[in-house]
Amino acid sequence: MEKIKIGICGYGNLGRGVESEILKNSDMELIAVFSRRDSLAINSNAAVVHIDNMEEWKDKIDVLILCGGSANDLPIQGPQFAKIFNTVDSFDTHAKIPEYFKEVDEAAKLGGNVALISIGWDPGMFSLMRLYAGAILPRGETYTFWGKGVSQGHSDAIRRIEGVENAVQYTIPSQSAMEKAKNGEGAGLATRDKHARECYVVATEGADKERIEREIKEMPNYFADYDTTVHFITAEELKANHSGMPHGGNVIHIGRTGDNNSQVIEYKLQLDSNPEFTASVLIAYARAAYCLSQKGETGARTAFDIAPALLSPVDSETLRKELL
Amino acid sequence: MEKIKIGICGYGNLGRGVESEILKNSDMELIAVFSRRDSLAINSNAAVVHIDNMEEWKDKIDVLILCGGSANDLPIQGPQFAKIFNTVDSFDTHAKIPEYFKEVDEAAKLGGNVALISIGWDPGMFSLMRLYAGAILPRGETYTFWGKGVSQGHSDAIRRIEGVENAVQYTIPSQSAMEKAKNGEGAGLATRDKHARECYVVATEGADKERIEREIKEMPNYFADYDTTVHFITAEELKANHSGMPHGGNVIHIGRTGDNNSQVIEYKLQLDSNPEFTASVLIAYARAAYCLSQKGETGARTAFDIAPALLSPVDSETLRKELL
Repeated sequence: MEKIKIGICGYGNLGRGVESEILKNSDMELIAVFSRRDSLAINSNAAVVHIDNMEEWKDKIDVLILCGGSANDLPIQGPQFAKIFNTVDSFDTHAKIPEYFKEVDEAAKLGGNVALISIGWDPGMFSLMRLYAGAILPRGETYTFWGKGVSQGHSDAIRRIEGVENAVQYTIPSQSAMEKAKNGEGAGLATRDKHARECYVVATEGADKERIEREIKEMPNYFADYDTTVHFITAEELKANHSGMPHGGNVIHIGRTGDNNSQVIEYKLQLDSNPEFTASVLIAYARAAYCLSQKGETGARTAFDIAPALLSPVDSETLRKELL
Repeated sequence: MEKIKIGICGYGNLGRGVESEILKNSDMELIAVFSRRDSLAINSNAAVVHIDNMEEWKDKIDVLILCGGSANDLPIQGPQFAKIFNTVDSFDTHAKIPEYFKEVDEAAKLGGNVALISIGWDPGMFSLMRLYAGAILPRGETYTFWGKGVSQGHSDAIRRIEGVENAVQYTIPSQSAMEKAKNGEGAGLATRDKHARECYVVATEGADKERIEREIKEMPNYFADYDTTVHFITAEELKANHSGMPHGGNVIHIGRTGDNNSQVIEYKLQLDSNPEFTASVLIAYARAAYCLSQKGETGARTAFDIAPALLSPVDSETLRKELL
């Protein structure tokens, strides 16, 4: 069987994740990495191609996985490249999804391609879980918790404080808020009630740690409303123990049926590597994009529109026999 | 908008669950309950119709939800009624699914109908979670745990012991086995390692409780291989605290990405009422069966084949805006 030919656009953490994880899928092969950079050392034998020459690869790539950022790259690249290739992306600016969907949809239809947008875990798997749970138990509430995971924005905010050499901030879901949600007592829980903040800080020599801790805990918007813990550690400890990219979270739905019976659905992710997991989801959906395109479909889709069987390389008969 | 017209076939716990939960879906209405019994008191205003007269309702029902048992009812009713109606069922004899699918598929195609088989939570939601997780993280292992929930077969086995007046047996997932699975140390875990058994027993007056406990714990196949706890309680306590139908379980997938990063996906159900939850899943999939039939599709399908958006009464644009 011929393999699905994959291209990667953008070679940051996510692009490198796709490159490494694609090896675990024997029905696919990585053909090219497209980048704005003129020279690029990559970890595989794929071709390295300047993004300006992408169109020449139109017939050599089945699905292009867009690994750029949602703030600056995807709003341009999504519509632009959906005209040329079947695409999959992880566009995650929730408020702009309707607008982005519309633009990509038009471009993909124009090019005769399929474009899967907002694939990953949130948006993505978490969105699916919210949809499934709400459809099954319409009398209910859904809560999303994030973490334990590094927040880049909050880490940066700490680093701007005088006397701070380096810092990593973890967003941590509140166990008590999760229990409340599961017990049906979650009404009115705000994001700040649902999460705590844990900070690992390297102070410069002689810095006033009490003041730093106070400045962190009193910082408006970022920390003041949250249960915040500050740990001072050495630069070596920070490097050894806090340089990973873990993340995860929980989607909890509590519904009621019959005579006030409680029904709790929970989906939980504990990820050592956020980009490698997101990459893995993108790859599975690249398979679906290829299938849909083979069937002659065109236009934008989200995870909501994709039948689960399309994510698997295994045929339907075997899936029914082994997984149902 | 016209409502989706639903029929129920079989009026046990599951049928009553569908009857109660359908009220929470404003896009549906219950038209008729079909039963083998000649007279039947039901909890709604739906028509009560003898199963022999079902064919007369062909044009009055959009989807028939089959609520019979997998051992005796569905193997006959599934193929028989898929010739007449769009159907949804909860066929759960895992080993016979391929054969059942084939028979129902032929019948549904013959009748021009859509038949969704093996819908519920296992098979059903748990199957979906095994599929999603395995497709995203192909280098990994999936573990399914069941409980805490009542096992009818094990409860019956205890009741057959001399001196036992009544008994309820709960299957309980082993916390330590779940931890092992999440830590990637789950290889070789058998069903008996993954579950414990908790028994609530009402003894007849003067019965030898030590002997009863010993007979339970030493019973081959049912209890001997398991960590088993026996509690003696009064008939009143059994009725007050153990007459519900709770169930649930966990699907845990541990995958590896990149340089041995651990990625854990967990799906957990805690259900106060097993039949009401299964009923709720069947209802959501009845909506999907109706949609597919409206599009002109025919034949058997499983949860693997159904795009998640079809389960929701909400339109795709709103779903993208609010849930993605």
